[in-house]
Amino acid sequence: MTSPKNGQKIVGLAPNREHSFYGRDIVSVKQFSKQDLGYIFTVADEMRGIVKRVGATDLLKGYVLANLFYEPSTRTSSSFIAAMQRLGGSVIPIHGVQYSSVSKGESLPDTIRTLECYADVIVLRHPEMGASEIAARYATKPIISAGDGIGEHPTQGLLDLYTIYSELGTIDGLHVAMVGDLRNGRTVHSLARLLRMYDVSLTFVAPEILRLPDDVKGELTEAGRPVREMGRVEDAIEEADVLYVTRVQKERFADLRDYEAVKGCYEITPELMSRAKQRMALMHPLPRVGEIRYDVDDDPRAAYFRQMENGMYIRMALLAAVLGKA
Amino acid sequence: MTSPKNGQKIVGLAPNREHSFYGRDIVSVKQFSKQDLGYIFTVADEMRGIVKRVGATDLLKGYVLANLFYEPSTRTSSSFIAAMQRLGGSVIPIHGVQYSSVSKGESLPDTIRTLECYADVIVLRHPEMGASEIAARYATKPIISAGDGIGEHPTQGLLDLYTIYSELGTIDGLHVAMVGDLRNGRTVHSLARLLRMYDVSLTFVAPEILRLPDDVKGELTEAGRPVREMGRVEDAIEEADVLYVTRVQKERFADLRDYEAVKGCYEITPELMSRAKQRMALMHPLPRVGEIRYDVDDDPRAAYFRQMENGMYIRMALLAAVLGKA
Amino acid sequence: MTSPKNGQKIVGLAPNREHSFYGRDIVSVKQFSKQDLGYIFTVADEMRGIVKRVGATDLLKGYVLANLFYEPSTRTSSSFIAAMQRLGGSVIPIHGVQYSSVSKGESLPDTIRTLECYADVIVLRHPEMGASEIAARYATKPIISAGDGIGEHPTQGLLDLYTIYSELGTIDGLHVAMVGDLRNGRTVHSLARLLRMYDVSLTFVAPEILRLPDDVKGELTEAGRPVREMGRVEDAIEEADVLYVTRVQKERFADLRDYEAVKGCYEITPELMSRAKQRMALMHPLPRVGEIRYDVDDDPRAAYFRQMENGMYIRMALLAAVLGKA
Repeated sequence: MTSPKNGQKIVGLAPNREHSFYGRDIVSVKQFSKQDLGYIFTVADEMRGIVKRVGATDLLKGYVLANLFYEPSTRTSSSFIAAMQRLGGSVIPIHGVQYSSVSKGESLPDTIRTLECYADVIVLRHPEMGASEIAARYATKPIISAGDGIGEHPTQGLLDLYTIYSELGTIDGLHVAMVGDLRNGRTVHSLARLLRMYDVSLTFVAPEILRLPDDVKGELTEAGRPVREMGRVEDAIEEADVLYVTRVQKERFADLRDYEAVKGCYEITPELMSRAKQRMALMHPLPRVGEIRYDVDDDPRAAYFRQMENGMYIRMALLAAVLGKA
Repeated sequence: MTSPKNGQKIVGLAPNREHSFYGRDIVSVKQFSKQDLGYIFTVADEMRGIVKRVGATDLLKGYVLANLFYEPSTRTSSSFIAAMQRLGGSVIPIHGVQYSSVSKGESLPDTIRTLECYADVIVLRHPEMGASEIAARYATKPIISAGDGIGEHPTQGLLDLYTIYSELGTIDGLHVAMVGDLRNGRTVHSLARLLRMYDVSLTFVAPEILRLPDDVKGELTEAGRPVREMGRVEDAIEEADVLYVTRVQKERFADLRDYEAVKGCYEITPELMSRAKQRMALMHPLPRVGEIRYDVDDDPRAAYFRQMENGMYIRMALLAAVLGKA
Repeated sequence: MTSPKNGQKIVGLAPNREHSFYGRDIVSVKQFSKQDLGYIFTVADEMRGIVKRVGATDLLKGYVLANLFYEPSTRTSSSFIAAMQRLGGSVIPIHGVQYSSVSKGESLPDTIRTLECYADVIVLRHPEMGASEIAARYATKPIISAGDGIGEHPTQGLLDLYTIYSELGTIDGLHVAMVGDLRNGRTVHSLARLLRMYDVSLTFVAPEILRLPDDVKGELTEAGRPVREMGRVEDAIEEADVLYVTRVQKERFADLRDYEAVKGCYEITPELMSRAKQRMALMHPLPRVGEIRYDVDDDPRAAYFRQMENGMYIRMALLAAVLGKA
């Protein structure tokens, strides 16, 4: 976790300045201890309870979030906006920045330092890896990364892990299978890195050219987590407690015949689901473009829309935590 | 009216689950009974009273609206945003979606099912006819159509009818004349379909090539409403209680000389207004591009800006109603 | 100050209709008396106090601001949004209007008259000089200009003057030096016009081709303010209580060698700052593109980020004032 910032950064009524999340940036899944994760999940559970019972709270009434998106991401930006609003706070939506003056010549640090004059917390989505770290270095108010290029997307990693915990009641002892483009999928890397801290078995299912990078694999084996790799989802589904599916993008293949040959192995159908455990979770970060058939949606194990919903609870928990109000 | 949805869709404090609008979608003017319309107008009257007296209420405090516009419409989107805000709720503005990931490959049902994880109600504007129906079929939370292509724009129809009721105190017994492009104007079709339920006389004033389509005319005569057609607004204005003007778009004419020949017949001037009844309502869905001269604006019968304002009250009424809070 | 508008314009609870700002437009720095400025600064001080202590108030709860930007300006639009939200009000964000229907054919007066059906106050940024005046003429609700083309940007002028007052505790008696493109910089012209009312000495530092226009210079000398012009910032920094720096844009020079020759004279460095007074304010309207080196940022006299923050307090003061709630 990055270093705490100076005390004058948070306006508002009596934030809990003692708490370890107060004033912190959220820029990498690597910053969390297992204890941190347990704490965030407990707060997320509370947020879910509030939303289900009464829709919203006034916890962040009077707080302002600057939602700064240098590239479009309707899903993530909407999730953060709803999270802030259900906490009673308000949002400055700064989307489509590519068309705006902040992209003309001004440095990211200056933009960040300007926005923190207006807002209490900044969510940043940026196309370049490392942008969140730079923003966090210059900001005196908390920065929450909403993804930077091929770098991290830490809140996605947290919501994925929280979904496993929510769906199955535990993380330790599970068998997690990840499917699809494991090479380029940053959600896969973030989730794998978080799972490293738990007693899990991992299976990675991907065509040869889209296998998990060696550095991520190395981190897992170093942490003592058993890792298996295979090429067909049929071989992994039966023992999976979690099946985490991602897109296999056509354009990653040099030879389209290779793509046509493998894509069927990565399409989840009702037939395939009939071979899975009765109690398991089928996940996907969405959007999907054919990896999970629509007629799987009614399967009670299809967890991907609950996963979306969990994203809002996780973001509510993080916003409340970094503002000292969790 | 489409079928009620499951009971778990609405978060928030004690919505009135007994009410017939609770949890419904608003996708077509055809879904309303005369009794429904009376109810909506009564609620809209109350909303107007609240706004005029105190500006806003807390009726939808803690509720979140996803305002999903696949094509720009400043007027309609602003009206829905203001409506939600004056009810104490908040809004996720999702405009310019054409530049965003939700337009890349993801299906409308998946986008809708994602947004309803964050929001309590979704307003949808889409360029393709039928999109609202599709969204409503997949959503478990209420969908309110803000227009889909050449299809319906039901809230516009409601605000037009409500304006007639507000301006003249009744709808039954009136003589309503509609002027302009009656062939392509979806606002004309929606309003005509709503008026069918009332004891009104209808006059349609349009150049030959822009006449009311036969199917709409058929619905009116079948309902027993007297229908007249004519070519010049001068011939209709004297007995009209309502003159509903729409744009005559140059580009609809194959031969521009035809356009030049007719356009003067469809320009409302102070001179023309001097021949109208003392108590009547001049309406226009706006934007106007020359159909009503600016020097008509101060005429007390010029109702088009009050019509805009009524749009906000109707949308407040609908939002409150579908969330069980009217 | 433009004429007061009719009494029915403001919804909401008991605005102070007696106050001189109630219902007014903010379209030019020329509309303010010295007494007006003192009043605005007092209210801005109170707003700062509220934000520092508790983050926000409910002063404008239930009020709606239409934030209408015909050209992008992240900084200004975010500042107005945060200002309204910290006053407890809500915002209809209408950005990127160039892609929207209001830019297709509809006249500015019609757009304004539509938006005031939904909102209680309208902030307008427009590329054409005079657009704010036109909007104000047609609107019955208050218009606040956020800049129109090469015309005025009055809230920028106010926040600049307020920053001088905040940083140095007074305005009378100060020596203010302005540096950079004094010919084209509208912030320079607005600030100079405001300073005219105070007992200040003014030094203008610019290359020959970017000198202050004669009309602005004339207004200053006519008001009895001593004016000096020079070409190098080194010659002005020692006696300046305020150094107001703006961009020198390369593209203004016909011959790039001229630019290369002068640009160094307009770059503020720590070395240069070592020659300035111990108590002075270094200001810049931002964004900067090289005029102030990053290693000056930690200098306590570097006031440009506080200047940004002051923008929010000034806009809070103006919004509250024109709505009769200050």
